[in-house]
This record gives sequence, C-alpha cells and structure tokens, in this order.
Amino acid sequence: MTSPSSPKPRVAIIMGSDSDFPVMRQAADALSSLDIAFELKVVSAHRTPQEMAQFAEGARSRGIQVIIAGAGGAAHLPGMVAAHTPLPVIGVPVPIGYKQGEDALWSIVQMPKGVPVATVAIGGAYNAGLLAAQICGFGGAECDQALGDKLQQLKAEMREASLAKVVSYPENS
Amino acid sequence: MTSPSSPKPRVAIIMGSDSDFPVMRQAADALSSLDIAFELKVVSAHRTPQEMAQFAEGARSRGIQVIIAGAGGAAHLPGMVAAHTPLPVIGVPVPIGYKQGEDALWSIVQMPKGVPVATVAIGGAYNAGLLAAQICGFGGAECDQALGDKLQQLKAEMREASLAKVVSYPENS
Amino acid sequence: MTSPSSPKPRVAIIMGSDSDFPVMRQAADALSSLDIAFELKVVSAHRTPQEMAQFAEGARSRGIQVIIAGAGGAAHLPGMVAAHTPLPVIGVPVPIGYKQGEDALWSIVQMPKGVPVATVAIGGAYNAGLLAAQICGFGGAECDQALGDKLQQLKAEMREASLAKVVSYPENS
Amino acid sequence: MTSPSSPKPRVAIIMGSDSDFPVMRQAADALSSLDIAFELKVVSAHRTPQEMAQFAEGARSRGIQVIIAGAGGAAHLPGMVAAHTPLPVIGVPVPIGYKQGEDALWSIVQMPKGVPVATVAIGGAYNAGLLAAQICGFGGAECDQALGDKLQQLKAEMREASLAKVVSYPENS
Amino acid sequence: MTSPSSPKPRVAIIMGSDSDFPVMRQAADALSSLDIAFELKVVSAHRTPQEMAQFAEGARSRGIQVIIAGAGGAAHLPGMVAAHTPLPVIGVPVPIGYKQGEDALWSIVQMPKGVPVATVAIGGAYNAGLLAAQICGFGGAECDQALGDKLQQLKAEMREASLAKVVSYPENS
Amino acid sequence: MTSPSSPKPRVAIIMGSDSDFPVMRQAADALSSLDIAFELKVVSAHRTPQEMAQFAEGARSRGIQVIIAGAGGAAHLPGMVAAHTPLPVIGVPVPIGYKQGEDALWSIVQMPKGVPVATVAIGGAYNAGLLAAQICGFGGAECDQALGDKLQQLKAEMREASLAKVVSYPENS
Amino acid sequence: MTSPSSPKPRVAIIMGSDSDFPVMRQAADALSSLDIAFELKVVSAHRTPQEMAQFAEGARSRGIQVIIAGAGGAAHLPGMVAAHTPLPVIGVPVPIGYKQGEDALWSIVQMPKGVPVATVAIGGAYNAGLLAAQICGFGGAECDQALGDKLQQLKAEMREASLAKVVSYPENS
Amino acid sequence: MTSPSSPKPRVAIIMGSDSDFPVMRQAADALSSLDIAFELKVVSAHRTPQEMAQFAEGARSRGIQVIIAGAGGAAHLPGMVAAHTPLPVIGVPVPIGYKQGEDALWSIVQMPKGVPVATVAIGGAYNAGLLAAQICGFGGAECDQALGDKLQQLKAEMREASLAKVVSYPENS
Repeated sequence: MTSPSSPKPRVAIIMGSDSDFPVMRQAADALSSLDIAFELKVVSAHRTPQEMAQFAEGARSRGIQVIIAGAGGAAHLPGMVAAHTPLPVIGVPVPIGYKQGEDALWSIVQMPKGVPVATVAIGGAYNAGLLAAQICGFGGAECDQALGDKLQQLKAEMREASLAKVVSYPENS
Repeated sequence: MTSPSSPKPRVAIIMGSDSDFPVMRQAADALSSLDIAFELKVVSAHRTPQEMAQFAEGARSRGIQVIIAGAGGAAHLPGMVAAHTPLPVIGVPVPIGYKQGEDALWSIVQMPKGVPVATVAIGGAYNAGLLAAQICGFGGAECDQALGDKLQQLKAEMREASLAKVVSYPENS
Repeated sequence: MTSPSSPKPRVAIIMGSDSDFPVMRQAADALSSLDIAFELKVVSAHRTPQEMAQFAEGARSRGIQVIIAGAGGAAHLPGMVAAHTPLPVIGVPVPIGYKQGEDALWSIVQMPKGVPVATVAIGGAYNAGLLAAQICGFGGAECDQALGDKLQQLKAEMREASLAKVVSYPENS
Repeated sequence: MTSPSSPKPRVAIIMGSDSDFPVMRQAADALSSLDIAFELKVVSAHRTPQEMAQFAEGARSRGIQVIIAGAGGAAHLPGMVAAHTPLPVIGVPVPIGYKQGEDALWSIVQMPKGVPVATVAIGGAYNAGLLAAQICGFGGAECDQALGDKLQQLKAEMREASLAKVVSYPENS
Repeated sequence: MTSPSSPKPRVAIIMGSDSDFPVMRQAADALSSLDIAFELKVVSAHRTPQEMAQFAEGARSRGIQVIIAGAGGAAHLPGMVAAHTPLPVIGVPVPIGYKQGEDALWSIVQMPKGVPVATVAIGGAYNAGLLAAQICGFGGAECDQALGDKLQQLKAEMREASLAKVVSYPENS
Repeated sequence: MTSPSSPKPRVAIIMGSDSDFPVMRQAADALSSLDIAFELKVVSAHRTPQEMAQFAEGARSRGIQVIIAGAGGAAHLPGMVAAHTPLPVIGVPVPIGYKQGEDALWSIVQMPKGVPVATVAIGGAYNAGLLAAQICGFGGAECDQALGDKLQQLKAEMREASLAKVVSYPENS
Repeated sequence: MTSPSSPKPRVAIIMGSDSDFPVMRQAADALSSLDIAFELKVVSAHRTPQEMAQFAEGARSRGIQVIIAGAGGAAHLPGMVAAHTPLPVIGVPVPIGYKQGEDALWSIVQMPKGVPVATVAIGGAYNAGLLAAQICGFGGAECDQALGDKLQQLKAEMREASLAKVVSYPENS
Repeated sequence: MTSPSSPKPRVAIIMGSDSDFPVMRQAADALSSLDIAFELKVVSAHRTPQEMAQFAEGARSRGIQVIIAGAGGAAHLPGMVAAHTPLPVIGVPVPIGYKQGEDALWSIVQMPKGVPVATVAIGGAYNAGLLAAQICGFGGAECDQALGDKLQQLKAEMREASLAKVVSYPENS
C-alpha cells in the first residue's frame, strides 16, 4: 500500500512479516508527520526471495530514494535489499524471540565491506523514519544522477571481482 | 583538513581521537574513490565539547550534507553531533580497548527517539563512506530546503517539550 | 526544582527524561534521609544539548559539589556532563528498552582517559545518592579551591591537546 | 571447481569470500576422506546475489543433495541459499572481525519458521563436512549403506585414537 | 510413542524432560504435516544415561534415519546422542531458566571435531522437523522424490502465504 | 609505601595482587600529576581478608578521604573495602584472564543497596585517580564531620537491620 | 536457625538477604530429604562483614563440613566466606535484578588461584544441597557409607521417575 | 596413569583431550603439593562414551572420592560423568576456541536439578585440585584432620606470601 497522501513515494518501508508491523508502523508515523510520501509492504527475504530481489532492483527507477527494512531473528532482509540496490538502506532490528532483537542487531549491523546498512536501535523504527527524512531532506530534492550511476557501477564491479574469485582444492590442483 | 580535490566538501568525517584515524581513513578512501569532496578532522565530545557543538551546529550552513563520526569505548561523539544538527549522522564504532568495539556499538546504536544515528559495523568506516555517498547520490544534488527546515524545526520542538518536563520531589510538593 | 529543605543545594540530580524519575527519585530519597540539600531536574543530552552544557558549566560556581546523572539506552548524559564540568559526576544506568540497562552501563562506564564517570549498578540510584553523600562528607565541608582550579585547568589542557591533533589525508599530503 | 574425484558432486561447499577458504577447506577435507564428490566455490549473498540465487535454485536438479555454506559477520549466505532451495543447508559461522564469529552464529542459527539452517560450531567446517556425509549416508528413500558403514567405522577410529592418548604426570615420569 | 500413522518411523524426536514437550511437539507437527513417520519420547542424558546410550546405539538398526533432540540449560542430550550414533542428529536449544536458551545454544552448537550436531534456533523445533524432512527427502543413496517434491511445494505455499500478507497504514485506511 | 611527596596521604590506592600494578600505577600517575599525597599497597580480599578489613576500618581515622581499589576476575576487593568503611570507594576492573575484565566489571559495579562502589572503565585506573582528585577537590579541603558520622551511623543501622533478619525452615517452624 | 532434626549441623546454608530465601530454601529441601543436619542463616558480606568473617572462621571448629552460600548481583558472599575458612564452599548465583543472575555467576565462579568456590547453576540451590550431601557422603578420611548409599539410591529414583515420563502426540491420542 | 606416590588414588582427574593437559595439570600440581594420591587420564564423552560411562560407574567402588573433569567448547564431560556416578564432580571450563571457555562455562555450570557439577573458573584447574582436597579433608563421616590442617596451613602461607608483596612507586623509589 502507499501512504494516504497522493504524491509519488520517496521512501519504502518493508518488513519480513506482518507481525513486525506494530514496531515498523512507527517509521510510517515519523514520515507522515513530516508529509513525506512512502509505501509500506511485507517482503520476506526468506519466504519470497524473488519478490524481495525484484522489489529492491526496481526501487531506484520507481523514484524511491531510501528504503527502511525491519526484521527480527536472523534478520537478513535489510542486508539482502542492500545487496540488490544502490539506494541507502536503513535497517531496524525488530525485538522478537528469546534474544529480543540482539540477534537481529548483529545480523543487520555487521555487514561486509561494500554493502552498508544504516542500522538504528533495537525497535527504533521511529528513528528509522526520521533518518529517512534526513536523507530526503539533506541529500535532497533532486538526485545526483551521476553519483547514483557511479554507485550502481561500483556494485557491478564488486560483483565482477567476486565472480573472479576461485578457490582450488586440493590447493595445488 | 579538507580533501585534496578542491570542491566544497559535502561530507564531514570526524573522530574523537587521532588514534582512530587508521580505522576512519577508510571512510575517506571510499569517498575519494567516488570523487566526493569531504573534510576530515579530530573533534572530541569529551575533550572539546564546545568545539564539537559549534562544528555540528555550523555544518548545515557550510553545505555539509552528511556527517560521519567514529568513536570507541563510551562512544558519545556520533550521538552528540546528532543532537546538535538536523543532518544525517553516520556512526562508526571504533574497536579499541578490552571490549573491541562492542561497548561503542551499544553507545552509538541505541539512540533515543528523535535523534537517530545511522550505525555501521564495528570498524566499518569504509561502509560509512559508502553510505554517505549513497545519501549524497540518492538523497540528491540539491537539498530539499523545506524538508530540511522542518527537521530543524522538529529538533526545536523536541527541545521545547523536553524543557517543559518538570519532576517534583517529594511527588506531592 | 530544589529539595524541600531550604539550604543551598550541594548535589544536583539530573535525568534525560521524566520517565527516568521512578528510578532516579531513589537518589533523592538517599540524600533526603541524610539532610543533604539537592536540586533535581530533567536535562537531556540529546534533546537539550545547549541547556545541558550550560547546566554543567555553571554547576561549580553555583556551589554544587557533585552531580548525579541517570540515563538509559545510548546513555550520553553522565559522560557529556562530565565533559563540561570539573566536578565529580556519578552515572546511573537506567534500565529501559530491550537490553534493560546493559547498553546504558557500557555507554556510561567506558569513558575515555581524562573524563571519569563514577558508575553505579544498573538502576542503582539509591547508591548514587549515598555515594554523593560520601563525597560531600569525606571530600568535605569546604572545597579545596586550589585543587579544584587545577582540575579545571587540566580540562583546559586536555582541550588544547585535542585541538592540536591534526589528521592528514592522504597521509603524505 | 569440482573435487578431484570424477563422480558427479553430491555436496556443494560455498563461501562468501575466498578469505573464508582456510576455514572452509576443512569441509572439503572431511568429504574427501570419505570419498564423497563435492564442488567448491565462492558465491556471495551480498556481492553476487543473482548468482547466489541461481546457484541455489539449480542445485537440486544438478544432483546436489546438501549444501554447506560458510560466512562471517552478518552472515546471510546460508540462510539466503536456504531461502532458494528445498535442499538441506548446513551453515558454518566463520570467525572474522571483532566478534570472532559470534555475530555470524546469531545470523545463521536464528532462522525463522519454515527455513531451517543446520548450524555447526564457530569455525566448525570439518564437522559440516561430516554432517553432510551423514545426510548422504543415512537420509533419502534408501540409505547409502556403504557410506553409512564408513561413518560408523570413522566413529570407531576416533574412539581408538582417543583411547591411545595418554597424559603423564609429572611429564617426565 | 510412535506417530499415529502406522509406517515404521524414519525420525526419532527425543527430549530431556516432559516439560520440553510444548516446544518439541512442533517438530512432530512439521513431520506430521509431511506424512513422515516418527517416534517421540523422553530420554534424559543426565537422569537415564544408560537408556539414552541404548536408544542412540540402536537407532540405526531400527531404521531411524535422523534424530531430533531438544534440551535446555547445560543441554547435553543432542551431543551425547551424537556420540553414540553415526546418524545425523539435530539439536534444539529449549528456552528454559534464566538464560532463556542461550546457555543451551552454546552447549549444543559448539561440538568438537568429529561429532557434529545440526543446531537450529532457540525454540526452533518446527524447523528441526523440517530439516529432518529435508534429510529424509534429499539425502541417502537415492533421494525420496515424492518427499522432495512435497518440500518444494511447501516453499511455494509459504511464498503464497507471505505474498497474501498486507499491512495497511493508517490501520483503518 | 607512601608517595614520594611527604604530606599525609589523602588517597589510598590498593590492589589485590602485585600483578595488577602495571594497570593501577596509572591512578598514582594521575594523583602525582596533581600533587595529591597518596599511599599504595597490595591488600587482598581473598588472601589477606583480616588485613583488608583492618585497612578499611582504619582508613577514615588515618585521614584518608577516598580509596581506590583495583581487582580482576571475581573482583571482591572494592566492594569488601566499601563494606568496611564509610569513605567513598572507587573500583577499577582490572583486565585479567579469559574475560578481560568483563567479569570484574560485573563483580564491582552491581553492588547492593547501601554499599556503593564508584566504578570506572575496565583498566581505567588513570580515571580512578582523577575521580579521587575530583572528590578531594570539590568534596573539599576539610571533611564534613557531622555528615561523615551520619554515614558511619548509617552503616551501623544497616548492620543492625541485617542482623535482625531471620529465615525459618520449615517456614512454619 | 538450625534444622528441625536435632543432630549437630554438618552443613551451613547462608544467604546475603532474606529475599534470597525462596531460592535458597531448596538447598535445605535437598538436605532435609537426605536427613543431613544443617543450619540456615542470613549473613551479609556487605552489611555485616565482621559477623560474616566470624561465622566463616568458626565454622570448622563447630563441626560444619561444608558451607552453601547464595548471593545475587555483585555476589561477594561465597568468595569472602571461602577467604575466611578452609572448608569447601558452594556458591549459588541468585537471580535478582536486571541481569537475572549472570552478574552473580561471574562474581562467584571467577575466583582467583588459591580460593575456590564450587559454583552451581543460576538459581541452582537444590543442586547445591545435593553437592553438599555428596561431599558429606564421599569426602573425608572415611566415607559415610550410609549417606553414599542414599545418594546412589537417589540417582536410581531419578532414573525411575524419568523413565515413567511419557509424552503423547497428538495429545489426545 | 596414577600419581607417582604409591597410595590408592582418592581423586581422579580426567580431560576430554590431551590438548587440555597444559590447563588440567594444574589440578595435579595442587593435589601433589598436598600429598593426595590421584589418577589422571584422557576420557572423552564424545569420542569414547562407553569408556567414559564405565570409568564413572566404577569410580566409587575403586575408592575414588571425587572426580575432576575438564573440557572445552560444548563441554559435556563433567556433566556426563556426574550422570553416571553419585560422587561429587568438579568441572573445569577449558579455554579453547573462539569463545575462550565461556561456552564451556555455560555447558558445565547450568546442570539440571538432581545432577550438580561443582564448577570453578575458566581455566581454574589449580582451584579444582584445591577444592578436591577440601572435599577429601573435610567431607565424609569423619574428617581427615591431617589434610584439613594442611589446608588451613596453606591459607596461612598464602596470607604470608601476599603480605610480602610490596609495590613501589615511582618504581625506582
């Protein structure tokens, strides 16, 4: 669904499960209070990986400027969305289960070189909305196409470099 | 110091101590590789709090779009800079001391409602640079002044609301 | 507000949010039971950073001998107050959120060289009050002005040393 | 690359980066010692997400029976492979960075309902190979009696080797 | 007891105490939903060690293909069963006591070289059942095509169910 | 030993073992740099408990105003000294053994109601010295005898209240 | 108080506060069930340190063979009692406060060389009683054959009780 | 092997692997210094479970009074030995692998009701030997007065050695 205000969404809020909504709706509250148009949907890295990839790959061209992704447990959604898009991705560790979000924090924040996720506090969805607003506000009203293209290019180069890695076993074979 | 390329810096990289530089210079590497102008300096929340406040309060008007702050231990720099500016702030937990950055992670990521810090991995300064680039690229070439003003206004409202809080002891006094 | 007893306050109790009061009022209880005059207020490092700085910078000259600061989450209040005053600062990790004060403990206790915070147990506000009383009682009835001035001087020297730090990038530039 | 023995691989060993190879090669050692054919490659969830998805989706039809995936930090590879295949997936937390594999353990083991990952110890790639062999030996519509017997024999050999260990005190007695 | 369906059990589900049953019955639910015959019993490593050893040593010859073992606290059951059988063993950390399963996770997952336990999430018994099904479906000398197809179908159903989830904001919109 | 400067010591620095000295000497450095007289000795809560008690009980009357105690592992020294004196006690968690001071931090900071220990960072002995100086400087040149006596009285009352506690088993006996 | 049975106590059960009694009475239950005479009292390391020292120093000559000490938080009681007596001391981490006994575990178990404390699980007072019984039964110059036989019998009863547990699935089958 | 002194062993020291010997030999050192006969061997819960069970079940009748068991990682040896004998069992968490003994501590200390393990510090094998001596000295139907006196003497010697420690500041003073 899109936000009630009609303009084209600048921010996408996604979550791995509808049970994350009571936490993640606070991101929507923050954006609404600042009149920033957003879309909001359930996309699961684990249950709908193809749809997740499609969503992330299409986000830039649909005009989304920043993605907020919330997940709990082995929280792969923010990092996988970041793997599929050059847009900035904000990750919200959702407090579920017996570790109450600490497992999700480690899963979200410890991303490898080349694929950042902007992580907020456990359960910090309101701040995720505010951070998205800061990005829209101070990053700006109009994207820097040239830099965006460079970032997309960087992703392609990382992919090439990774594809070129070969491990050989036994080592001298 | 500013980056070697002459254009006006869009990103500020700060760190609490020059001993953080071997980690934090990777943020500069990422920005350099993408030709994004930046400035780089030592600013301590604990040793130079007034200068830290001045730096953060002046950043927006000097044209900075995003601030990267690295700190270790009881890492207050990213959060305090965020308290003094409406700009997006990226926090890098620097791995020093006996907890090797885990203490810094908790100090940086668990920010209260209203003052987000975009946290990256322990020692993840390169990704901080990349995230800043994403914000410059997809947030945009030109800031959204109206939204930026709203965010600055939001900070002022939070301040007013906080100043209005009075606790009374004994309670019925 | 000041304590009901009329004498000039020797101790200041501050907290980041009025929701910390149920914990922090136990510091007031301890001081009241020993007839030590105190003041009690909400001061937020993140929402009212200027007021926090003013409060801390003015405390010594107003006759405050020790400050008790309580905060939860990324608990910056005790450390930032300590950055702005030569007075001894006692930090109370307040148990809020999903880590129940462990995050606050790391944020408060792991202060860098030069800016100590005397940390008590998670939720240990009563003991913070008692510790303040011990400082007033055995530190003394009359301050040691010369030593106090030296400590204020030490802060100034730390500031100068920190301001003198320059990092240069690229390193040989 | 495929294992030196010519038969069609039954097991795939993948890792997010070639720097994981010193750990992950122990999975290959275990399989080699039991004459189980395997393939071994670098596939990154974050840098080559499309290739990772293709790899996982094609594994069953290529005759792979079980996949071993190793990753460190925010270790998404095992869980994302599991999202793309019905085959059993074994996850190895690789000890890199400042948390030495504890972050990877939480990222790998805490998978949501419906998408299991069989997690072994931090750095436990040898055991991952052995577990894959157990699956090849005892699972399916019909067990692989010869392999099952080899595994039972391996247990007997471990027992003999352990019984042969003697410690002597004092050392020179 | 054995499962209601009459065929010879392929999977054994054991637990250290009948108080683990509310968690462990979810493994039975997963197997039942896939029509896989199983047996279910209380076997304690600490209170009935001889029976535990006999159970594990006899499992292969009785036709069991995989064992699921759940335990809490100093959870020795999965590892000790694995010490007594060459079959694959799946361990479920059961969330009891003051560490809520984190102690059990460490006790189960950190097995030494030569004796793997396939560990799932804290409380993840449903996934343990699913993992056992994957082993029965895809392992062995010959895969169980029908079961493999069911598992692939299960993934498709999860995807459909997830795609059907819609969150709406504001809630009454 | 006493510090080289001849005046009567105002601060006592103690440690559980001479192996703690490389850490704890930094407290002496801080005091020396501020010309505060101190004494420095090895006193063990576990190996010399009577001497530890005597030391703590005599400290006030010998003119000591604040005690700094460092210990590692199950670090009981700071808390036990605090149990035997009304003076303020500063605790330094010393980083020894396999937990590198985290065990000592928990042992020192989590003191029960009525017996505070002012805890500094793991290995933070320099800051302990500075905090002692702050107490001497702003607590003061001359102790507040009346308040000191009240605090000593409070200790006596706590003791009486504790001695009055009787538990009865079986409960109705 | 002493146990209802009249013989001279062989075991002393102490706790830092009467609020520990609901946990610690389980040690008494274990000893009662084996007809071992014990005494039970509140002794605080922090509030009554002299009485604690006297208690521990006199225990051997009063015929006590083993001491069980329970404490929470910065749990110094077991270790300090061990510092004052050559008798074996069993420590029970009592689950109080925001860390629910994990702080107490570190404070009790990490004792320095020369002063052991036999630590049991968090809240494991029943097992502390059983361990004391094992020491009374099997230690010393001459074992207590009758008690040893009772303990062997207890194991057999636990085994029978465990074997009698049946779980049934589906529940109403 | 048995200890060099000829008398029948009263204590058994076992370890899961000969790589644990550098830690576990300190238990032998403690017993040797007190002239307590012991035996020392490698017994693995995971690699030689039958031998482990036989060893534990036969220990009482062979005259062993207490068993010391050391293990690392998923450290099952102490708890499984305790499952097979009514004798008191002392567990030593051995610091191996990426968690350096914390995993072993949780696996050893969190034993279920009915099967205690007397746990000492991570790597605390010397204290395990001392605790075994305390059990041999003070437990049983009749205490071993001579050994008890030796242990009391040992405390006195530790005290003397600790009192003899002097730290001097500045070092060359």
